[in-house]
Amino acid sequence: MINTFIFPDILLYVLDMFGIIACAIAGTLLAQHKGFDIAGCILVALVNAIGGGTLRDMALDRHPLFWMTDLNYVIVITATSLILQIFFHLYHKIDNALKFFDAIGLAAFSVIGFKVGLAQDLAPMIAIMMGVWTAIIGGLLRDIICNEIPLVLQREIYITASIAGSLAYLALDYGGLDTTINEFTMLFIIFAVRMLALKFDWHLPSIRLVD
Amino acid sequence: MINTFIFPDILLYVLDMFGIIACAIAGTLLAQHKGFDIAGCILVALVNAIGGGTLRDMALDRHPLFWMTDLNYVIVITATSLILQIFFHLYHKIDNALKFFDAIGLAAFSVIGFKVGLAQDLAPMIAIMMGVWTAIIGGLLRDIICNEIPLVLQREIYITASIAGSLAYLALDYGGLDTTINEFTMLFIIFAVRMLALKFDWHLPSIRLVD
Amino acid sequence: MINTFIFPDILLYVLDMFGIIACAIAGTLLAQHKGFDIAGCILVALVNAIGGGTLRDMALDRHPLFWMTDLNYVIVITATSLILQIFFHLYHKIDNALKFFDAIGLAAFSVIGFKVGLAQDLAPMIAIMMGVWTAIIGGLLRDIICNEIPLVLQREIYITASIAGSLAYLALDYGGLDTTINEFTMLFIIFAVRMLALKFDWHLPSIRLVD
Repeated sequence: MINTFIFPDILLYVLDMFGIIACAIAGTLLAQHKGFDIAGCILVALVNAIGGGTLRDMALDRHPLFWMTDLNYVIVITATSLILQIFFHLYHKIDNALKFFDAIGLAAFSVIGFKVGLAQDLAPMIAIMMGVWTAIIGGLLRDIICNEIPLVLQREIYITASIAGSLAYLALDYGGLDTTINEFTMLFIIFAVRMLALKFDWHLPSIRLVD
Repeated sequence: MINTFIFPDILLYVLDMFGIIACAIAGTLLAQHKGFDIAGCILVALVNAIGGGTLRDMALDRHPLFWMTDLNYVIVITATSLILQIFFHLYHKIDNALKFFDAIGLAAFSVIGFKVGLAQDLAPMIAIMMGVWTAIIGGLLRDIICNEIPLVLQREIYITASIAGSLAYLALDYGGLDTTINEFTMLFIIFAVRMLALKFDWHLPSIRLVD
Repeated sequence: MINTFIFPDILLYVLDMFGIIACAIAGTLLAQHKGFDIAGCILVALVNAIGGGTLRDMALDRHPLFWMTDLNYVIVITATSLILQIFFHLYHKIDNALKFFDAIGLAAFSVIGFKVGLAQDLAPMIAIMMGVWTAIIGGLLRDIICNEIPLVLQREIYITASIAGSLAYLALDYGGLDTTINEFTMLFIIFAVRMLALKFDWHLPSIRLVD
């Protein structure tokens, strides 16, 4: 019964778009802060939102790239970035919503990348890496272009949340559960870990070298 | 009559080489400024000149990469970088010539990338993006390697000129004009917008966030 | 006789792993210095160790990527990074060993990349570039992610050593010598040039612009 429910494909696309919008906003805000012009802000928004998936598909030889055939990605990102730049004074009001959408994006991007990895008959470990890759490389490239130390490698529970979700999927799959349930659980776990990390200020330890 | 004139293919190759030389000079100058050694300067020159086309072809699955089969690219870039490093004191005299060649390169790279996009039966919007990609990603990578905020995203009319040229091409093509005319117009518009932007100090607006 | 000795394939794999470990250590140390968390350090270690080979294979359209089918790479790098982070106070003791392993890695990575280039029937010049690419792009990406001016472009004899080794290979090959001998000579020359450069503080000249 449940596997006729078309949950993952359509819902995942909607969640993906929430994540895309969150990434476009985050990229635009950082680019504005750096003094980039309108076109520069749109470029950083594009890199932040679809850079990870682009490099993933290039590494996996999946052509044409997803955003070359589905124009919604470029349109949604460009529109988001333009609207934000025109109404930038709304920034402070969207800060909390951004974190919420960003967590949705982390979950959706991880599931999409993980599924792509599994579909290529790769080892589970590599599929987990594809989930992380899709979720964080866009933000990594954004920070590299803006000449910032990558946020995602420092202070935030991003990679860990993505891996936790993938491991949950694999555990449930090993237990014989339905793919739909596994994907839903994976989405939920990543979203929950990320929101809890924000709420309770969780960090992975960082071992600083003594000079 | 006019479409037997072999304008685009041979002339475009020559203009491409002007752009390659301009990029090799720009890359070498920044790398020297950063104190890179001879080999490092050549590498930055290569990245600046062929980095954008390389990533474009990787994204479009066009193999082998153009510079792997046509060795002129690597030879011209390496020779340009070496000559500049040996006679670097000529730098101040070449500054204006560099801006001129750079504008030629912007136009030629945009036309080449745009044509590659069209040839792959991609949506016009994606073909426009391929033109921008080819024209600016090399300079973006140069600045990233040299740990600089990318110039091309900040102060200069690069992306806008490239897009304006592509839109002109599409408008003329929609009007049924010959491809040769369209390409020539596209080349001219990009070159003219860039040179006018330099002369009259045009910039896209940049909306800075109030802290 | 000598060409039944299975030297290059198995020995090269072992030397490759030494290089992988050296790169994982170098990446982890820089990432720790930057205050990255445990997951961030592992990511930088991965990029440093397999980033160059990944981009090389993407540029040459060799799929699936080597580390997607041979999991030893990811396992060895992750284990190395984790062990180093847990016992980081051993750092000062490993500094000299790191330079030694790093030189082995430079030699092994260059030979592997150069062989890949030759196997694709590319021009010798492009094969030499593939050797350099494999040997240095990982370290370049590491420094870019960590927001540092790339070390490999500044102060060190890396690119030159790799090119010298490839040229020696081509000279011997032109003289009709056996591939096994050529590869061994190439490995030895790169390793020797690198170690001598460290010992005698050799640098390529860098021509600084007068402001």
